[in-house]
Amino acid sequence: MGQWREAYSVLADHLSARGIDVPGVLAALRAQHIETPSWGYADSGTRFKVFNQPGAARTAREKLADAAQVHRYTGVAPSVALHIPWDRVDDYGVLKEHAASLGLELGAINPNLFQDDAYRLGSLTNPDPAIRRLAIDHCLECIEIARTVGSRDISLWLADGTSSPGQDSIRGRKHRLIDALSEIYAAMPDPMRLLIEYKFFEPAFYMTDLGDWGMSYLMASRLGERAKVLVDLGHHPLGTNIEQIVALLLDEGRLGGFHFNNKKYADDDLTVGSINPYELFLIFCELIDAECDPSVDVDVAYMLDESVNLKPKIPALIQSVINVQVAYAQALLVDRTSLREAQESGCIIKAEEILLDAYRTDVRPLLAAMREEIGLDPDPLQAYLRSGYQDKIVAERGVADGGAGFQGA
Amino acid sequence: MGQWREAYSVLADHLSARGIDVPGVLAALRAQHIETPSWGYADSGTRFKVFNQPGAARTAREKLADAAQVHRYTGVAPSVALHIPWDRVDDYGVLKEHAASLGLELGAINPNLFQDDAYRLGSLTNPDPAIRRLAIDHCLECIEIARTVGSRDISLWLADGTSSPGQDSIRGRKHRLIDALSEIYAAMPDPMRLLIEYKFFEPAFYMTDLGDWGMSYLMASRLGERAKVLVDLGHHPLGTNIEQIVALLLDEGRLGGFHFNNKKYADDDLTVGSINPYELFLIFCELIDAECDPSVDVDVAYMLDESVNLKPKIPALIQSVINVQVAYAQALLVDRTSLREAQESGCIIKAEEILLDAYRTDVRPLLAAMREEIGLDPDPLQAYLRSGYQDKIVAERGVADGGAGFQGA
Amino acid sequence: MGQWREAYSVLADHLSARGIDVPGVLAALRAQHIETPSWGYADSGTRFKVFNQPGAARTAREKLADAAQVHRYTGVAPSVALHIPWDRVDDYGVLKEHAASLGLELGAINPNLFQDDAYRLGSLTNPDPAIRRLAIDHCLECIEIARTVGSRDISLWLADGTSSPGQDSIRGRKHRLIDALSEIYAAMPDPMRLLIEYKFFEPAFYMTDLGDWGMSYLMASRLGERAKVLVDLGHHPLGTNIEQIVALLLDEGRLGGFHFNNKKYADDDLTVGSINPYELFLIFCELIDAECDPSVDVDVAYMLDESVNLKPKIPALIQSVINVQVAYAQALLVDRTSLREAQESGCIIKAEEILLDAYRTDVRPLLAAMREEIGLDPDPLQAYLRSGYQDKIVAERGVADGGAGFQGA
Amino acid sequence: MGQWREAYSVLADHLSARGIDVPGVLAALRAQHIETPSWGYADSGTRFKVFNQPGAARTAREKLADAAQVHRYTGVAPSVALHIPWDRVDDYGVLKEHAASLGLELGAINPNLFQDDAYRLGSLTNPDPAIRRLAIDHCLECIEIARTVGSRDISLWLADGTSSPGQDSIRGRKHRLIDALSEIYAAMPDPMRLLIEYKFFEPAFYMTDLGDWGMSYLMASRLGERAKVLVDLGHHPLGTNIEQIVALLLDEGRLGGFHFNNKKYADDDLTVGSINPYELFLIFCELIDAECDPSVDVDVAYMLDESVNLKPKIPALIQSVINVQVAYAQALLVDRTSLREAQESGCIIKAEEILLDAYRTDVRPLLAAMREEIGLDPDPLQAYLRSGYQDKIVAERGVADGGAGFQGA
Repeated sequence: MGQWREAYSVLADHLSARGIDVPGVLAALRAQHIETPSWGYADSGTRFKVFNQPGAARTAREKLADAAQVHRYTGVAPSVALHIPWDRVDDYGVLKEHAASLGLELGAINPNLFQDDAYRLGSLTNPDPAIRRLAIDHCLECIEIARTVGSRDISLWLADGTSSPGQDSIRGRKHRLIDALSEIYAAMPDPMRLLIEYKFFEPAFYMTDLGDWGMSYLMASRLGERAKVLVDLGHHPLGTNIEQIVALLLDEGRLGGFHFNNKKYADDDLTVGSINPYELFLIFCELIDAECDPSVDVDVAYMLDESVNLKPKIPALIQSVINVQVAYAQALLVDRTSLREAQESGCIIKAEEILLDAYRTDVRPLLAAMREEIGLDPDPLQAYLRSGYQDKIVAERGVADGGAGFQGA
Repeated sequence: MGQWREAYSVLADHLSARGIDVPGVLAALRAQHIETPSWGYADSGTRFKVFNQPGAARTAREKLADAAQVHRYTGVAPSVALHIPWDRVDDYGVLKEHAASLGLELGAINPNLFQDDAYRLGSLTNPDPAIRRLAIDHCLECIEIARTVGSRDISLWLADGTSSPGQDSIRGRKHRLIDALSEIYAAMPDPMRLLIEYKFFEPAFYMTDLGDWGMSYLMASRLGERAKVLVDLGHHPLGTNIEQIVALLLDEGRLGGFHFNNKKYADDDLTVGSINPYELFLIFCELIDAECDPSVDVDVAYMLDESVNLKPKIPALIQSVINVQVAYAQALLVDRTSLREAQESGCIIKAEEILLDAYRTDVRPLLAAMREEIGLDPDPLQAYLRSGYQDKIVAERGVADGGAGFQGA
Repeated sequence: MGQWREAYSVLADHLSARGIDVPGVLAALRAQHIETPSWGYADSGTRFKVFNQPGAARTAREKLADAAQVHRYTGVAPSVALHIPWDRVDDYGVLKEHAASLGLELGAINPNLFQDDAYRLGSLTNPDPAIRRLAIDHCLECIEIARTVGSRDISLWLADGTSSPGQDSIRGRKHRLIDALSEIYAAMPDPMRLLIEYKFFEPAFYMTDLGDWGMSYLMASRLGERAKVLVDLGHHPLGTNIEQIVALLLDEGRLGGFHFNNKKYADDDLTVGSINPYELFLIFCELIDAECDPSVDVDVAYMLDESVNLKPKIPALIQSVINVQVAYAQALLVDRTSLREAQESGCIIKAEEILLDAYRTDVRPLLAAMREEIGLDPDPLQAYLRSGYQDKIVAERGVADGGAGFQGA
Repeated sequence: MGQWREAYSVLADHLSARGIDVPGVLAALRAQHIETPSWGYADSGTRFKVFNQPGAARTAREKLADAAQVHRYTGVAPSVALHIPWDRVDDYGVLKEHAASLGLELGAINPNLFQDDAYRLGSLTNPDPAIRRLAIDHCLECIEIARTVGSRDISLWLADGTSSPGQDSIRGRKHRLIDALSEIYAAMPDPMRLLIEYKFFEPAFYMTDLGDWGMSYLMASRLGERAKVLVDLGHHPLGTNIEQIVALLLDEGRLGGFHFNNKKYADDDLTVGSINPYELFLIFCELIDAECDPSVDVDVAYMLDESVNLKPKIPALIQSVINVQVAYAQALLVDRTSLREAQESGCIIKAEEILLDAYRTDVRPLLAAMREEIGLDPDPLQAYLRSGYQDKIVAERGVADGGAGFQGA
């Protein structure tokens, strides 16, 4: 990265000559915010095994401390999503203040509706009204936490579904879900938003109550304007054109946010941009397209949600932030005027080459320049690794015990 | 099949003892109507080759004659879907009368928006307003034909989409589609319905404008109550729970009809029920579940849509009709009261066994009995093959020429 | 099931008239052996949550006790696969005797190469030779156990792979794998067999070292004649024609065994036959086809391998055994002579109808008759549920603690 | 592209400082040969429609003329694959000389075993020996053509398979295939190679006789050393790690060649690198890895095989060649020594970042420099579009007629 300055100079000249507003691009890169998830700093795993990471965070405070590192070196990760009850504390006001002291805000609140024994047959869609009550009450608790810590968004992922044909009434579950979400939504003060996630399958294997964007959209449109759809990049069947879904939801005013990650086959929760970075670029092209359209109101939360089990946590999240920045930077370089002309005249190759011209540009000098402007090291990953923090947490925290996946016993 | 009477007697006793209303089942089987497609009687193929079938129908009249055979032997296929311009005639009133003389009605009218050179970049979503005009006008023509022949449904499958990233504006195409469909819908007289089909991919390979049920639903909900969604069983990504989509659309009052076929990987257009007959059974379970719910208005058109290239056409369609009947008959035997109890008490295995009990029942004696009641041979396929009709059309019509798929030249 | 006798009588007459050797079918059904897995009696789950089952087995002895129940009521599950170290005991000779006292044999030995912290980057393919040594030694230990308990098969599933592009050398890992398997195979006494499982993905998400049948076949053909391929029905990409793989491996003399389960999307480990029972039937058609061919040596181990998290364990395994029996019984009814004639003359519909004729037959009376012949209740599931065993183990064992999936903490 | 010289200077300095042999990279880029397919210059389409391109080539000579353009502007496409009978001529010696006069060689010969009416039930695997004879004879004819024109490779894609369960004997078809391939292989003079392609599905929808790399590998290993596997990038189930298959086949000495294209869902035959360019880069990383390993003999034919229906043909192929060059150039920049060290020490993020460092480099200045060295325009696509050739062929050839896809009539 040492020679980035020279490369930046050549690139900036080239882009300016092409009519790109380079200072505007840098400003956009500075303004991008990417929320990291508290659970991304803690151990995670597959059903077969949790490989405990040396130094992985064990408490909400440790998670915030680690998140502060990601923000310190990237400058664009100022908020942290919480997961309740994983991050339950006695006093959320104190937690908020502690976060602020680290330069952080508390972001989306994620209720957990899948790890209580009661939820074996579902949470908000459970046939038993007492269990639905339990699940709704947990969501109401999360709304209260959000209010306390000043979070705008409730991110609701529902693991509900069935694993055997006939297990439950599909329409019955839908009715229960509408009823439950209506009660939850009614409890949310303006301007708090309900982000309704969907997922094609897993952990329910036969049918998932919110299985695709259409089901989340249906629910959101029933509830009201502050109910939005959350797109997790790993929650689609293979071959899905995610950027189309993004564009449609933006156009409908219903895209609330992203959970960024990547997949090779299923919900692999791999590092965002690590399997198909071009797809991530195309998604950002749609976001910028909508932002440039005054008729669309774009208000989207960018959140990482990965379950990277093998990589060390903080470096993995710094890498993820960078991958998102690279895709965004590339998308900012698209010559949108020429693209629209090529599209309208049916020049397919020309239109595609306009995208490729942006995508093939090495945008790392732009990111380095932006970082330098705000006083950061141009290479966040190396800067973090040099900082000694990783050694410190490994020494202080050690390795957690257990996490063997299911045991057959 | 000779011994079906004895088997029927044992089965009917057994079912009656279980509380099943056997005459009611037979009545339901008699009342089921399955529309066959005019194009199912003509040659079809893959992109690599059309294998011309000896005796395949070449004209609208030949297709109707063949469809009359399917109805003659099954008794449940009294209508034929038309595809315009494949079935274009000078006088649709005469065609209707001709159909009536064969004991047939004319069913859904299918506009063709994919085989005109103009549609290279789309039809209703084409960037060129002149081509959108052409496409809309074709739909208006189809509405006029539907009015003339007394068809209730316009079945709209849109091949529109793009095959390269950047080729066209995703949101722009959506806006054009809403505008076009609005004009088409406005031209449809009550009670004519617009059935909006969706398809995950092909022939557009990067993005399909109506790619999933959610997109069709979104359009339908914009248009009005007589806009419905059409579910083609082959138009989903692998792993999709189709019965869930069916249940949701029924519950929303938006399921307009089916295109029945089956798939192993993509839109293979294989014989319905030939790859996963249990899935077809589960779909009928949802249909019956909704029919039994007075709060749901079920008004669904059952249409075959296959592109069986290797099997002789008429026998293939008779086989398809039977496969649908078998699934429906099995679903009619589900003990719905016990199922609901098992579901509500979370007895997963019991609930599943109730479905399996119905599915494992050999329902062929019920179908044989129903056919005998209405004066048909209990084995439609054998009866047709014995009839001599197939030999007659082979002799009269011969084999069509050409259809070599793309030639590389 | 009460009226099965009358149905049996009609069916047996009908089959005999068709030339089916009904006593031969019953004999084949009696002779079928389906191995159950020790881990199928213990708690299992997804990465999100293990829902602990009341009464789930906790020790090797409890697992054997439960397996004895499955065998007691089905009569066709006389052996139990072990998983080491989950089933590790001090004295395997004693365990074998204990099994024998319950009427059971010990079946395939399954090494565990995925739950040791050392295996984060792989076991037999790990870049570190010391860890490969650890993994090989574990396999050698399992061979010793197999020798002690009289097991013929080592079932090797390798979770090895990588989750990031570039993580390791693909060819390097292949070379390490050949070396490790060669050492393991060399240690296996004749006639012990090495069954090499493959899996498309999970828990490695970017690349799996043994990802498909071809890779397992490649390894087996390097090792020797007693190295075979193990087919787990859930370990293929969607759309795979599994019966074709089965036929090819049989034809090559390399099919060693099955892990039976079913999937809707990924390796869902659902009840065998619960999503697509027709596929299971088609697999058995290939097995019987090969058994009828004197040039093929069929020696295949049938093992259940499910991770049914929501159903009670013993009933779920009884249900699974029955599902396998149903598919096998249906496949036994295929008129193979007529099928071959139809195939050779290109009569596609006729060939397919011959399969459907067998598949649509309600074979439950045949299974009931077979069970009665060997002194069992005709309905194993109901007989088990009536027996009081389930209540007994629930009372005695209670519910295990923990198993919350990953905690984000 | 105008400013590429300055960017090249900065990049070359940067790469040299990193230890990259920049002249060596340019030499490798010059030496890369990418074969274009004769059928890529002619009209093609989907099953629904062939959109005839103005100026598309209609004869073998027109195809060669167009291929000469692609080579003229890229400098790396000196050979053309032929498809028989699409490119059948009276005198292949004359065709070879004509090609030479255009600066071209004739490349792989592709038999056509899917467009004769006789092949409805298969070609080399047809149940009818007379049809197998026809298919074998066609292959023998192609071998003779290859001998005449000096082609080294026969590229065999087999559309054979079945579309209905039970349609034919799976093992029987395998036996017929081995027999047929053995006869074909025996007729091939050294050093002619048989490249055996595989495909997951289509146009056979239930089972494909050569459905995956394992089946092609099995055949090749039966035949002899000059039988190799051909990898078409579009012929895998979704989620397949193609670079792993490439690495395995290279390691086994069985990778014969590629058909380059890209897919979103099925065998979409889109522009190579247009959906997931990172995957293409990873494939080239494996190729270079094997080339750097003296124990591996890499002899791989790079061929484009696309069916781009909407883009103009020659520009689409120039674009495709460039996409392949970009991926290759990026892969040449991987710091292989550091990568190996990172892999061996388990530094996953570092290993991945080494790949990303190469992938994110804007390699277009390297390609421009290479082109200039060999006297070409640095921007082949623009140079072609400026040349007037496209206008000339549009004017001379016009638009072909027909190609309407299947007609339903």
